[in-house]
Amino acid sequence: MTSARLQAFSDGVIAIIITIAVLGIRVPEDDSLSSIIPLIPLLLIYAWSFEVIGTYWINHHHLLRLVERVTGRMMWANLSLLFCLSLIPFATEWLGEHFGAPWPTSIYCLVLFAAAAAYSALVRAIVAHRKGDSELEDLLSEGPKRNVSIVLYVLAIGSSFIYPYLSYVFVVAVAAIWFSPDKHFLHRHAK
Amino acid sequence: MTSARLQAFSDGVIAIIITIAVLGIRVPEDDSLSSIIPLIPLLLIYAWSFEVIGTYWINHHHLLRLVERVTGRMMWANLSLLFCLSLIPFATEWLGEHFGAPWPTSIYCLVLFAAAAAYSALVRAIVAHRKGDSELEDLLSEGPKRNVSIVLYVLAIGSSFIYPYLSYVFVVAVAAIWFSPDKHFLHRHAK
Amino acid sequence: MTSARLQAFSDGVIAIIITIAVLGIRVPEDDSLSSIIPLIPLLLIYAWSFEVIGTYWINHHHLLRLVERVTGRMMWANLSLLFCLSLIPFATEWLGEHFGAPWPTSIYCLVLFAAAAAYSALVRAIVAHRKGDSELEDLLSEGPKRNVSIVLYVLAIGSSFIYPYLSYVFVVAVAAIWFSPDKHFLHRHAK
Amino acid sequence: MTSARLQAFSDGVIAIIITIAVLGIRVPEDDSLSSIIPLIPLLLIYAWSFEVIGTYWINHHHLLRLVERVTGRMMWANLSLLFCLSLIPFATEWLGEHFGAPWPTSIYCLVLFAAAAAYSALVRAIVAHRKGDSELEDLLSEGPKRNVSIVLYVLAIGSSFIYPYLSYVFVVAVAAIWFSPDKHFLHRHAK
Repeated sequence: MTSARLQAFSDGVIAIIITIAVLGIRVPEDDSLSSIIPLIPLLLIYAWSFEVIGTYWINHHHLLRLVERVTGRMMWANLSLLFCLSLIPFATEWLGEHFGAPWPTSIYCLVLFAAAAAYSALVRAIVAHRKGDSELEDLLSEGPKRNVSIVLYVLAIGSSFIYPYLSYVFVVAVAAIWFSPDKHFLHRHAK
Repeated sequence: MTSARLQAFSDGVIAIIITIAVLGIRVPEDDSLSSIIPLIPLLLIYAWSFEVIGTYWINHHHLLRLVERVTGRMMWANLSLLFCLSLIPFATEWLGEHFGAPWPTSIYCLVLFAAAAAYSALVRAIVAHRKGDSELEDLLSEGPKRNVSIVLYVLAIGSSFIYPYLSYVFVVAVAAIWFSPDKHFLHRHAK
Repeated sequence: MTSARLQAFSDGVIAIIITIAVLGIRVPEDDSLSSIIPLIPLLLIYAWSFEVIGTYWINHHHLLRLVERVTGRMMWANLSLLFCLSLIPFATEWLGEHFGAPWPTSIYCLVLFAAAAAYSALVRAIVAHRKGDSELEDLLSEGPKRNVSIVLYVLAIGSSFIYPYLSYVFVVAVAAIWFSPDKHFLHRHAK
Repeated sequence: MTSARLQAFSDGVIAIIITIAVLGIRVPEDDSLSSIIPLIPLLLIYAWSFEVIGTYWINHHHLLRLVERVTGRMMWANLSLLFCLSLIPFATEWLGEHFGAPWPTSIYCLVLFAAAAAYSALVRAIVAHRKGDSELEDLLSEGPKRNVSIVLYVLAIGSSFIYPYLSYVFVVAVAAIWFSPDKHFLHRHAK
């Protein structure tokens, strides 16, 4: 299996996941303003999940470019990542309908945590296969970022039972870490 | 990230959005003619949205052909455009079930306005990166068309509260602007 | 726009349409055999629609291979075809739930008729652009088949109000025409 | 039709099928833990189906690489396989909501059996076309595995009426057969 094929399949699955979440926004029965006001939190969380999946897509794309030969281990790590991402629409819809409630918040954070862990496993599978490479060093130098993200997601899960709004701060913090201008990221972009 | 990759992903998302709207047409309970008559406005608006998304797809395709290297700014402008387009099925379904009602009309126009604004932002991101180019001049010469579209959508949103049917005239006018034979468009097609 | 791009987008839309129909098969409430017996006609019609869409995909693929430069007219004919095909899941679900009823039968046949007419329009758009070509002569020699199909679909729509089961005979007859070993088809396959 | 085109279309359909299953997991009405506890079996079966479809995708990919020219017979065998796979989300959802019940279990096993039989038919269609080839010998050497899988699925269907949990053992056994390190599989991977 070539990396291009795995990329194309993953892109297809991610494109479907990012679009399918919108199905969770159910059209209201009547045509009044008051009937769409309750949809606004759902819309915001949907926009947020869109951004999260979009970030995964961009990073996943850069990651797979480093792969020449796909091993069985990479394949299963990648399938696990896609599985975790495919749960985001469900978690988004539940949280959107119960914003601020402990369980929906913790499940949303748990799904993001699982996706981050699967992504790390995919990175490790790739690093295990290729060594002593300048591009891989870029990857390894992002290791702390990945680990901090996972820790922040654990904190988000924990705080969802005490003070759910704190969980959202942790989730936003993870996004900020990845969004912030990063020399390595720009470097790879520039190529 | 190459332009080809961004195109393939965007094409995938647009293909899903254009198809998913059909899920909004719910199969009637019984098998009589009278049960599908109320679906006719929904079908027409669905056909209209299909045409709108199809036009975006065609123009988006021409636009990305001008890009050689995708910058972070283009990436986010593109994700914003896809996000706005992904709201069209929702807006289509709501309008289809309440044709002529103020709020569904204004939300439909608002989603089209947001998509047009995101498209303009993508054009600006591309123009900012490449300068002094004959193909880009084509792009810039379409600037008034893009601006007129955005103004017409604002008028459509405004009139939806006074006389919703006037909003539909503005929406059709935008489509007519883009559908009309255009030297630049034909020129690019011929290449 | 290149033919390859149009093919890729159309393939994407067709792949989604062929899969989305399955969403119409709703999971029964309880776990008994009697609860899935009523799903059997839906399943058969779904299988049938799958076969119809699959045949369109194969023929569409052969058709677009003949195109070098996509004109605006081809683009809109192609979008119309995709629009008609995207209504098949809806028509399939309604017919599946009311097998043998006049209106669902006539709507199903009407959607197939519209798709066949849009396909013919696409063929004409391609023939108008390229002339005097041996491969195009193959296309033209299939003209009677396309016309007979359209006539059979009209008969199917008409008979749905008198004797719906006769409509199904016409629909099966169209499929038999296209499935039957055809020198031109095999010829093109062999290339 | 080239093999690449058939692969791309099949990949698209499989990507949609693997993602669409998640739509079966319906968001609970309220926000309590007790409302998501009943979703856990559905989630596990969904994860399982994800793994099954993922395995098909990987093997299907290897299989089509051996094809140079796609015959009509391969095309229809492939469409049959995609049809069977597209029923997995339905079967998954029904089983997930009635885990351990005879009929949902037998239908789930029946769908997996049909997919395995269609896959075997596709292999035979490819073998019939190309002969005396070292890569095809690899394929043929997997014949017993394919036959054992089909027999195990038949046993799973049978036992679903007597002791459904035994059926799950057979289903897991099939997956274990395909997951187990296999010289031919690794060999092909290494290429």
